[in-house]
Amino acid sequence: MKALILSADNFEDSELLVPYYRLQEAGYSVVVSSVRRGAIHGMHGYEVKVEKAFSEVDPTEYSVLILPGGKAPAAIRHDPKVQEIARHFMTSGKPVGAICHGPQTLISAGLLTGRRVTCYRTVAKEMQESGALYADREVVVDGKLVTSREPVDLPAFMREVMRLLPHLGAVAPDAYWCEGSSMPLAAGEKKRI
Amino acid sequence: MKALILSADNFEDSELLVPYYRLQEAGYSVVVSSVRRGAIHGMHGYEVKVEKAFSEVDPTEYSVLILPGGKAPAAIRHDPKVQEIARHFMTSGKPVGAICHGPQTLISAGLLTGRRVTCYRTVAKEMQESGALYADREVVVDGKLVTSREPVDLPAFMREVMRLLPHLGAVAPDAYWCEGSSMPLAAGEKKRI
Repeated sequence: MKALILSADNFEDSELLVPYYRLQEAGYSVVVSSVRRGAIHGMHGYEVKVEKAFSEVDPTEYSVLILPGGKAPAAIRHDPKVQEIARHFMTSGKPVGAICHGPQTLISAGLLTGRRVTCYRTVAKEMQESGALYADREVVVDGKLVTSREPVDLPAFMREVMRLLPHLGAVAPDAYWCEGSSMPLAAGEKKRI
Repeated sequence: MKALILSADNFEDSELLVPYYRLQEAGYSVVVSSVRRGAIHGMHGYEVKVEKAFSEVDPTEYSVLILPGGKAPAAIRHDPKVQEIARHFMTSGKPVGAICHGPQTLISAGLLTGRRVTCYRTVAKEMQESGALYADREVVVDGKLVTSREPVDLPAFMREVMRLLPHLGAVAPDAYWCEGSSMPLAAGEKKRI
């Protein structure tokens, strides 16, 4: 299975790298896409290989979309192909995880009207103005959309993203899963509380 | 359950942050310990809170030890309390994960004789001279000791560390777990290959 990350230079390094490695840990092939092939560099100096330009992405190939934060979302949020990719995931019932400034792309694509979401505090105003239902919480899950505020929220963010992934899961102690978990529990496995 | 990370200034940021967040995702309380309380800073500028000085650590409270890389291990490897903590984990059968330069602490504590391990390439020579059985692989698991070479190995590193953690359960794609997995599979769940 494949995961897609859309970003650009000046991404928030941990918000890209943590999902990037976490999804690989779970067996995903993770593709980073940006304006052009080559490499992008984070605000803290990490370099990440860009396997595909936005124009080369067929979103139907991917099971999950991740939108990291930093200054990158401001640079890509108005790109028509980026918006088209985001629209595919949001309208086809596939999981989308957006953290910090990452939801800006969803705002620009007009995809957050009436959706429960969170984001970095400086993004909250434009998020509300776009019709979203903003809450200041470490993670907000609305259907298949997972949003978080900032790097310290990454554990909750990735926990909820991983719960939504098809056929994948998690390694977790008892009491990890909430009531109504969407995880496929094996026959005979107790319901986690 | 609690996890312990031993480090210092100039840690390799992703090698500390990825396990730090991953273990929190799985429900662990993760304590970073260093020379003194306060904060340490990574080579890429990330700041991490130091909850305990080495002298304040009771290793019996923790279920797993993580030793990230960077320049930090060189600064702490000869500290008697650091070596004592490492010795507790290595001799009591608890999981230890060391990546990149992280294994240097285990070398200085004389804990790698006859053990199968890997590490950053520039550490390989002293590792072999200490009596360890070095292999250039993304991850090497010897009993409860998990070692890796560098940041790009983090997915394999964390996958193997998580497999060794007590009281954890797993839901994962087929072909994720190897034969002989130490994970407790739920009744009725098929053996993963």
